[in-house]
Amino acid sequence: MAIPAGTLTQQLQWRYATKKFDAGKRIDPITWAALEGALMLAPSAFGLQPWKFLVITDPALKARLRPVSWNQAQIEDCSHLVVFLARKGLGLPEIERFVDRMAEVRGVPRESLEMYRGFMVSKLVEGPGAKRIDEWATRQVYIALGAFTTAAAMLGVDACPMEGLDPAQYDGILGLEGGPWRTICACPAGYRAPDDAYAGLPKVRFRAEELIEHR
Amino acid sequence: MAIPAGTLTQQLQWRYATKKFDAGKRIDPITWAALEGALMLAPSAFGLQPWKFLVITDPALKARLRPVSWNQAQIEDCSHLVVFLARKGLGLPEIERFVDRMAEVRGVPRESLEMYRGFMVSKLVEGPGAKRIDEWATRQVYIALGAFTTAAAMLGVDACPMEGLDPAQYDGILGLEGGPWRTICACPAGYRAPDDAYAGLPKVRFRAEELIEHR
Repeated sequence: MAIPAGTLTQQLQWRYATKKFDAGKRIDPITWAALEGALMLAPSAFGLQPWKFLVITDPALKARLRPVSWNQAQIEDCSHLVVFLARKGLGLPEIERFVDRMAEVRGVPRESLEMYRGFMVSKLVEGPGAKRIDEWATRQVYIALGAFTTAAAMLGVDACPMEGLDPAQYDGILGLEGGPWRTICACPAGYRAPDDAYAGLPKVRFRAEELIEHR
Repeated sequence: MAIPAGTLTQQLQWRYATKKFDAGKRIDPITWAALEGALMLAPSAFGLQPWKFLVITDPALKARLRPVSWNQAQIEDCSHLVVFLARKGLGLPEIERFVDRMAEVRGVPRESLEMYRGFMVSKLVEGPGAKRIDEWATRQVYIALGAFTTAAAMLGVDACPMEGLDPAQYDGILGLEGGPWRTICACPAGYRAPDDAYAGLPKVRFRAEELIEHR
């Protein structure tokens, strides 16, 4: 059942880029499972999901990532750290794999998906889009980031979407080098510390008439 | 107040990329205002909001956009069409404008924001990021797209995030040429037609163990 408009707005107003997490508070398994669901259910172009999500809770690994994250404390103090990865060089094999999965999930013959398959190939493999495929995948990852932060706000979970990290260093520490994935951004999640001064600051947004135009 | 995890999951499962809208159903003003709020409140790097949202309800304008949107019927049949624009060539003036706004909203002297201002300038104007500033702004727009589709699902509003359009043609029709904004993507919103066959199809997602890895 849909939620009231007022609840949506309240939770989005409540959300902020958390600067200080309560290092002693953990997200419970049911809440976290719903947030992993939000990652998995995020929309992507063609439904291709050119992404992967690393969920990091190991304190030792978080400690190694902090120095290559502009030394931001949220990396260590959060409950769950999500690292957003994009597929490198997406091409025919990934499209075939997705079509296989479509056929499997929907219980339809693979042949019935031939037109859709051809369409994806024409746009992503044969067309001019192929040259920019890594950037295309990266953009999709940002959809998932927007979906995740919004979903977290709905559940009263704090988060801090984070571009401020060194992707190459992440790739090294996470053992991604030479593989099909690369680090794009991260998002620590957990619960704000009671004394995070940023929680109380008024949100800075440009005026509605600057951001939204009706036609 | 936060919503239950089950409600989040239900609404995200209910969401799908709507192929056929009920052309007779309109989103009511209170619901729509909350969705505009979700656009405005979406997170962006540094809080810089390098975006603008055109909300199009004029049938004549929608009719002109449809042919340059792969002729997708959702453009015309939706209640509200959001066109997502990114700032071109973001630089010092936009950073100054944002710092002005910070000072205004938070009621602090502009000097107190000097360090933050310098940090943004170092990253976006002076650093290597300057060369890729348009792509950086574009990525932020995808956060807003993810936030919007998630928020719409919460309110029981259907949507269809859409890359399938000709951005240059959009820019021409919307009179954006020569200005600071460019079209990135769009998202029709409204209510699904009762006979949209896509609504009933099982969602195709890769297996959880392929998409999410715990460490």
